[in-house]
Amino acid sequence: MALLPHIVIIGAGFGGLAAARGFAKAKVKVTVVDRTNHHLFQPLLYQVATAGLAAPSIAAPIRHVLRKQRNATVLLGEVQDVLLSERVVVLDDGAQLGYDHLIVASGATHSYFGNDSWLKYAPGLKTLQDAQRIRSQILRAFESAERENDAAKRADLLRFVVIGGGPTGVEMAGTMAEIARHTLPGEFRHFDTRQAEIILLEGGERILNSYPANLSESALRQLRSLGVRVELLAKVSDIDALGVRYEQAGALHALRTTNVIWGAGVKASPLGAMFAKQVDGLHLDRAGRVPVLQDLTLPGHPEISVIGDLASLTSRGSTVPAIAPAAKQMGAHAAANVLRNIRGQLLRDFHYRDFGSMATVGRHRAIAQIFGLKFTGFSAWALWLLAHIVFLIGFRNRAVVLLDWAGQYWTMQRHARIF
Amino acid sequence: MALLPHIVIIGAGFGGLAAARGFAKAKVKVTVVDRTNHHLFQPLLYQVATAGLAAPSIAAPIRHVLRKQRNATVLLGEVQDVLLSERVVVLDDGAQLGYDHLIVASGATHSYFGNDSWLKYAPGLKTLQDAQRIRSQILRAFESAERENDAAKRADLLRFVVIGGGPTGVEMAGTMAEIARHTLPGEFRHFDTRQAEIILLEGGERILNSYPANLSESALRQLRSLGVRVELLAKVSDIDALGVRYEQAGALHALRTTNVIWGAGVKASPLGAMFAKQVDGLHLDRAGRVPVLQDLTLPGHPEISVIGDLASLTSRGSTVPAIAPAAKQMGAHAAANVLRNIRGQLLRDFHYRDFGSMATVGRHRAIAQIFGLKFTGFSAWALWLLAHIVFLIGFRNRAVVLLDWAGQYWTMQRHARIF
Repeated sequence: MALLPHIVIIGAGFGGLAAARGFAKAKVKVTVVDRTNHHLFQPLLYQVATAGLAAPSIAAPIRHVLRKQRNATVLLGEVQDVLLSERVVVLDDGAQLGYDHLIVASGATHSYFGNDSWLKYAPGLKTLQDAQRIRSQILRAFESAERENDAAKRADLLRFVVIGGGPTGVEMAGTMAEIARHTLPGEFRHFDTRQAEIILLEGGERILNSYPANLSESALRQLRSLGVRVELLAKVSDIDALGVRYEQAGALHALRTTNVIWGAGVKASPLGAMFAKQVDGLHLDRAGRVPVLQDLTLPGHPEISVIGDLASLTSRGSTVPAIAPAAKQMGAHAAANVLRNIRGQLLRDFHYRDFGSMATVGRHRAIAQIFGLKFTGFSAWALWLLAHIVFLIGFRNRAVVLLDWAGQYWTMQRHARIF
Repeated sequence: MALLPHIVIIGAGFGGLAAARGFAKAKVKVTVVDRTNHHLFQPLLYQVATAGLAAPSIAAPIRHVLRKQRNATVLLGEVQDVLLSERVVVLDDGAQLGYDHLIVASGATHSYFGNDSWLKYAPGLKTLQDAQRIRSQILRAFESAERENDAAKRADLLRFVVIGGGPTGVEMAGTMAEIARHTLPGEFRHFDTRQAEIILLEGGERILNSYPANLSESALRQLRSLGVRVELLAKVSDIDALGVRYEQAGALHALRTTNVIWGAGVKASPLGAMFAKQVDGLHLDRAGRVPVLQDLTLPGHPEISVIGDLASLTSRGSTVPAIAPAAKQMGAHAAANVLRNIRGQLLRDFHYRDFGSMATVGRHRAIAQIFGLKFTGFSAWALWLLAHIVFLIGFRNRAVVLLDWAGQYWTMQRHARIF
């Protein structure tokens, strides 16, 4: 038996998993390495952070997803290094994994723009652990308020600051406002949960700035109608145990709070920097992403594809966005290119197909742009709901999430309020 | 308005919650203190530890359960002390809570019989955190085995030792055997998960020794039919990073393993010791439980009732068992007695109504004794399933648990395999 080509895939997010599936019928050996045991449906992570869904509802064991693909092996491990000249991936315990082709889909993490001390006070939302930490923090704030007799201290406990007006920040702020106004009233005896203040700080002049201006405007109105205080052109200057300081219109403002959620900055996985060290002339972009060729490969290394949030690419005149559909398309394309390469064919360029995008604000509140059509409010929300149910991996998750959402919809309750 | 009598309830397990509900229609003020924010359906905790259910499926926020009972306030807090002479409960931050009546339902925790170093290697199963720790440990063992090339080391990774043949130990061992034999095969490429060894060590001469001998015998057969190795009269002498040593028939045996689960010993909450210090002549039993009077009150303190796993009581000639139905009955009885006391009536004695008990071994495998009738195998399992669904608190949890179980039943899958 001839030795089969070995393809190593780093990361089992939307990109890595799509790449692995692209080899389902091929005569190759595939190894998927991830540092968690699960594929995460990240678009619903804010639902775990806000106690609407249990963690297992939005995560599936990677090896379960790939169980029928007999040519795929899944390894739990953290990549320490990639030795390009030797074609070897080095794992945490020093184990070496040789490859013929490498697909790198290790994604992105939070960036505090050099202020790493902020991490302690303002957790970001990228992993299940992050989500459970934030959930616990939000729920504990209300519990502490029930035990606090001093009105001013209680108001501080009930002040929640979300930093960053991107999709995560908007979802978090909107859902937290719903919790304070609809889920919790009637369960506390010493204060009215509707007193909670939810404040969203956005550094730019509008929220959800990847959308057309009139959709951003609509999202802002929808968010304010939920009672969220939105501050635009608000540049955060410091975060510590006392709260958040920000500048706006030349004035310095301070918010006393111990509840801060970070949704402002993202930087690419450190694997990008490892490649930059080893490839002459490779310069990462500001967010640490790897500029790839049009065929998604690393310059000078046709055996390595970089996809998903780690890749920086302009397709059809615009930047490919860091969203799940783009990562999936890139994953499938990279796998197809590897198979072309094995057959001795030329690699093909990647072209991003933009079906649209959507962001949710709360119950009956969202914005969407699909095939150029714009939606706001209930119709956008219904589209968002449909898309997220359809794309949830695995029937069981879908059924449980539907059941949870149906329950939430009618009762305004959230069942995962556990810490 | 006259000052209402204030009843403080410590602990919101089955006993504490039943007590709180007993005051639903009374003109009193009730304060429930618990150190977690949730009521836990402990009989299904092993399902979380074995990745069958998500944590929120078996837990409900205490304040949500009691939201409609307007006279009840729920406080998150840990009790540091109870000052009997001043009728004051002292919380973690020094806050004092005066009471007219106190119901103590703080339950029990693990006991390592003085070998506290074992805790590090052999976690017990009492809280959601315990369950998630054990779940992560079991899943990681299989992940490590997939990366291990040395057959002997792999066998060590796949050796799981459960200590204690009570209901928790039996459920854990049986379910882990099912996972290795039915859930995981086909998902690993480097070894056969059915090679995993599950070993149950029981110090006595039979497992589930609170049941009649023939039911214990049946449970043993059912457990062995699942592939569990059961060692009786096996006394554990040490547990450390290398594994477990035990004595059996005069010989010393060693099991190399890093996967040990502790289900052997239980000791009552430390609140019992606080009472013993303050009440002359009060001697706790070996497990640290408080001997209560027949009316469930603390000797010399008719204003204090002790219930559930913390109470030691003989009713109708036999010891009241430390199980959920007994705790519920005691909670309801204690509340009724407090109301009698307030009305100036005499307290009534508690009589335990024994409807029976049941223990599950695995799919289609269980034992049950109900109204004196004995069941084994499928019929016992069906009864067990029915009872646990019926008594699960809250419709939503029940629906999700049913759905999960239906899915598990048909597919042999477990959806919460996430860490």
